Amino acid sequence: MTKLRVTVFPKAGVLDPQGKAIERALSGLGFEGVGEVRVGKVMIVEVSETDPTRARAQGEDMARKLLANTVIESFTVEPA
Amino acid sequence: MTKLRVTVFPKAGVLDPQGKAIERALSGLGFEGVGEVRVGKVMIVEVSETDPTRARAQGEDMARKLLANTVIESFTVEPA
Repeated sequence: MTKLRVTVFPKAGVLDPQGKAIERALSGLGFEGVGEVRVGKVMIVEVSETDPTRARAQGEDMARKLLANTVIESFTVEPA
Repeated sequence: MTKLRVTVFPKAGVLDPQGKAIERALSGLGFEGVGEVRVGKVMIVEVSETDPTRARAQGEDMARKLLANTVIESFTVEPA
């Protein structure tokens, strides 16, 4: 059994309204010196594959087919 | 300037309907051997604080006050 961590972020240049809302909310709460905030998703996926290279390749396949929208999002897959 | 990575997950035992939906969708797409999937949020927050310890403390404060619902979610803060 392998645990994979798939992290998905909006690509650079793609608007991130959630991040902008958090920037404003943090300033509104009194936090000073807050710069850019980017918001992404992270998924821990358990797969039965035990070979690390194959497990990672499976995770990348999952990200391309379901977990990320590769038009506007980039993803990374690593051991969790 | 320091970049912090704040990761927020549902606590163990808290239902994760997004994760369950992804489990089913991955099986439906033909992926075999998929176990549990947990879905969280990840935020990259730029702060002007340059001292690593203070920046991290600020990130933890942000997580407690805004970024995480600590009743049902746990969070980690680390350098990005």
